Amino acid sequence: MHDEISLWSENDYDKESIRLCVEKIKNEFGQQFSNSKSILEQHTHTMTIHDSELPDGVVFVESKEDVQKVVKICNEYKCPIIPFGIGSSFEGHVNAPYGGISIDMNNMNKILNVYQEDLLVVVQPGVTREQLNIHLRDTGLFFPIDPGANASIGGMAATRASGTNAVKYGTMKDNVIALEVVTADGQLIKTANKARKSSAGYDLTRLMVGSEGTLGISTEITLKLYGIPEVIAGGRVSFPSVKDATDAVIMTIQSGIPVARIEFLDLAQVKAINNYSKTNLPESPLLLLEFHGSESSVKEQSELFGEIASDFGGNDFEWTSNNEERSKLWQARHDAYWSCKAVRPEADIYSTDVCVPISRLSDCMIETIEDMEKNDLIGPIVSHAGDGNFHVALLIDKNSKEELKKLDTFLTRISERAIRMDGTCTGEHGIGQGKRKYMLKELGSAVNVMKQVKMAFDPYKIMNPGKLFL
Amino acid sequence: MHDEISLWSENDYDKESIRLCVEKIKNEFGQQFSNSKSILEQHTHTMTIHDSELPDGVVFVESKEDVQKVVKICNEYKCPIIPFGIGSSFEGHVNAPYGGISIDMNNMNKILNVYQEDLLVVVQPGVTREQLNIHLRDTGLFFPIDPGANASIGGMAATRASGTNAVKYGTMKDNVIALEVVTADGQLIKTANKARKSSAGYDLTRLMVGSEGTLGISTEITLKLYGIPEVIAGGRVSFPSVKDATDAVIMTIQSGIPVARIEFLDLAQVKAINNYSKTNLPESPLLLLEFHGSESSVKEQSELFGEIASDFGGNDFEWTSNNEERSKLWQARHDAYWSCKAVRPEADIYSTDVCVPISRLSDCMIETIEDMEKNDLIGPIVSHAGDGNFHVALLIDKNSKEELKKLDTFLTRISERAIRMDGTCTGEHGIGQGKRKYMLKELGSAVNVMKQVKMAFDPYKIMNPGKLFL
Repeated sequence: MHDEISLWSENDYDKESIRLCVEKIKNEFGQQFSNSKSILEQHTHTMTIHDSELPDGVVFVESKEDVQKVVKICNEYKCPIIPFGIGSSFEGHVNAPYGGISIDMNNMNKILNVYQEDLLVVVQPGVTREQLNIHLRDTGLFFPIDPGANASIGGMAATRASGTNAVKYGTMKDNVIALEVVTADGQLIKTANKARKSSAGYDLTRLMVGSEGTLGISTEITLKLYGIPEVIAGGRVSFPSVKDATDAVIMTIQSGIPVARIEFLDLAQVKAINNYSKTNLPESPLLLLEFHGSESSVKEQSELFGEIASDFGGNDFEWTSNNEERSKLWQARHDAYWSCKAVRPEADIYSTDVCVPISRLSDCMIETIEDMEKNDLIGPIVSHAGDGNFHVALLIDKNSKEELKKLDTFLTRISERAIRMDGTCTGEHGIGQGKRKYMLKELGSAVNVMKQVKMAFDPYKIMNPGKLFL
Repeated sequence: MHDEISLWSENDYDKESIRLCVEKIKNEFGQQFSNSKSILEQHTHTMTIHDSELPDGVVFVESKEDVQKVVKICNEYKCPIIPFGIGSSFEGHVNAPYGGISIDMNNMNKILNVYQEDLLVVVQPGVTREQLNIHLRDTGLFFPIDPGANASIGGMAATRASGTNAVKYGTMKDNVIALEVVTADGQLIKTANKARKSSAGYDLTRLMVGSEGTLGISTEITLKLYGIPEVIAGGRVSFPSVKDATDAVIMTIQSGIPVARIEFLDLAQVKAINNYSKTNLPESPLLLLEFHGSESSVKEQSELFGEIASDFGGNDFEWTSNNEERSKLWQARHDAYWSCKAVRPEADIYSTDVCVPISRLSDCMIETIEDMEKNDLIGPIVSHAGDGNFHVALLIDKNSKEELKKLDTFLTRISERAIRMDGTCTGEHGIGQGKRKYMLKELGSAVNVMKQVKMAFDPYKIMNPGKLFL
């Protein structure tokens, strides 16, 4: 495997030209512009161990015309543009390593049109998923993708986000129907119309989804919606081992039980929850389930799953379609984040994710747990087990160089482990700055093809430079 | 709307250079090469009204190394390469308007690996969907995508095919997990590993799916598989009008009933079937349904659908989970093609497809039926109604210039009608040669972005020239 030739270089960006560009944007946008220290810092404040790299200015856009104007000016001056949603990225996506303009999308937060018969909605990128679902409440429809944070739809599309119920509803790639995008030269394009499927030309929608702001900035997003399930049932069951739990998951998927969520918590995570939430869950790996459907359908799904669970040593599968009791069963999942914090209160949480074929999930998690034990790292695991995707919430003291180094070598090992098992170094967080160094190992010369695509879209490399590629 | 600047030009391809290239390939491949007239003709014989345009030679590849070798030679001589599967394209995808080499993929027909736990299979592109499902029979798994013809998986991926059960299982874009691809310079790349989801870089898988051989040639395809449903139920019901039938479809989808197939047949199609198959279906629009699941789940789905159908005037909804009776209920659908032929036995069938948001499906079909009446065209309609996708099987005498002209203006109107209704000029057949002229109207300047992508992948424009773009 040859070394990767870097796409980015300091020399591509002229400091004086960026200064003039920022000046021009400041003049054009007045009150919509800021370069106060605190604003600049907020726009790199991401949930990450990566050091902040400040932009030179932030512009708060309010319309697609604003976006086009910013991009056209930046294109003229070859000045970097970094799109900013709510800043919940883990991988340094909103940092500005080469300076430039952070383009804050939060004021573009209109829900433009709900098409009830077509189960579609058109939103601006600054709309958050919670805002969208509150808006939809009276329609009987909902947007299922739930990455945890109340992320912006634009950010979710840009990182190809998913979350707990991807096993049933898919990821952002499956739920974005069309995009309106401002490309690096300031052109406004639409990637598709509103038909549910199309064979007309290259799939620019899917090319944009997951491109992390490096190919263009979306200004309108058309999403699929779903009917709110008549009944939602929840379930919980403990297993003797990681392998038993994942085998039950595999059998569940193979049997075609349409689980809406199937979440795995490892021993460390269960212990952390017992400690934090004063619960007494059996101290062994845990699965949490959710079933969507009619009363009889969720009953059937739950019972079928119960049989599978018991075949794999699952202990006392409990389930309910009562909302209150369901929340109680699922409390463990909701407390996961804070329970980790409580394990080592002074530490920061660095969350990483990998994804492997489901047949390798157990191996990958077990090796990872052993790795942490051996290297004296604490990192409870939560897995979207139906997709083969899992997260490790590493508890790290950001101020300790030694710990950061230990974290770094661990991250390399877990990424390489997932890749060795024919998986990916990120199932849903994206590459950003943090995972660039694993791309070549994972995808080989396809990375060069991606770079060709990048250069075709953005010859001056102004769109979110320093991300995705080394 | 500005005019489109053509991507293709005779001048890009040097006849002498192509002659030398074909000579070299003939020497290299010996028995695997042919330029006999009949072989050349077979490799443009597609189910289409487009005139045949012969390649200069056909090479029957047997391995990825063969593909790389052909592509490298063609790249050196700037000679067009046209991938050939089973030739069931409707839109002239396998024609060779600039000559060159037709690369026949049919001997690359190995099913390489079934991953039962992961519900994945890796196949070579020449595998056909029937071959795959026969191979899978003992595993309890199946590959659902069914475009009608026994197409090759490579061709299905290249045109982003779908078919009757896309409403439940999605299209090829949803079911290709990863591709191994030979790019225009002869490099072998893989677009992804085998994880069910990934956020690692640009979605080259989806970019390749639907690119119609213009960006590269796939040599391995990883597909999603599904458990064969425990029970399959079929149903049939007539409606007073097109609108009633499509309203029932909309309500079915909104209610979240997970129908596996929901096919609409218009009056002309029903009449054709009654005539051909000596049946006595009520002469009004018809819906045919299929439900997949457990015994109780298909019963519930069928009953729920029955209530919806009756709300919209559906007449005597019949359903059964008995396989033999189900085949009888569905006989109409299976006879659709031949019943059309029988309406005008001396004519050729030219099948076109468009796809609109489902709320506009009824309008689009009704306007299309009126259009045909007005213009004295015969074209029974079959619709994958759950997706808003429909086909018109136009009965045309290919030898009549007048009829061809009438067809051409009809095709322009139906495409523009679908686009006006925020849909697409093709839901599943692809663009090929036939629908290039509607791309700009449908997608505007996004077409130029697609051309930039094309040029980044294939600067000499050797990969299936003359397709997708004007």
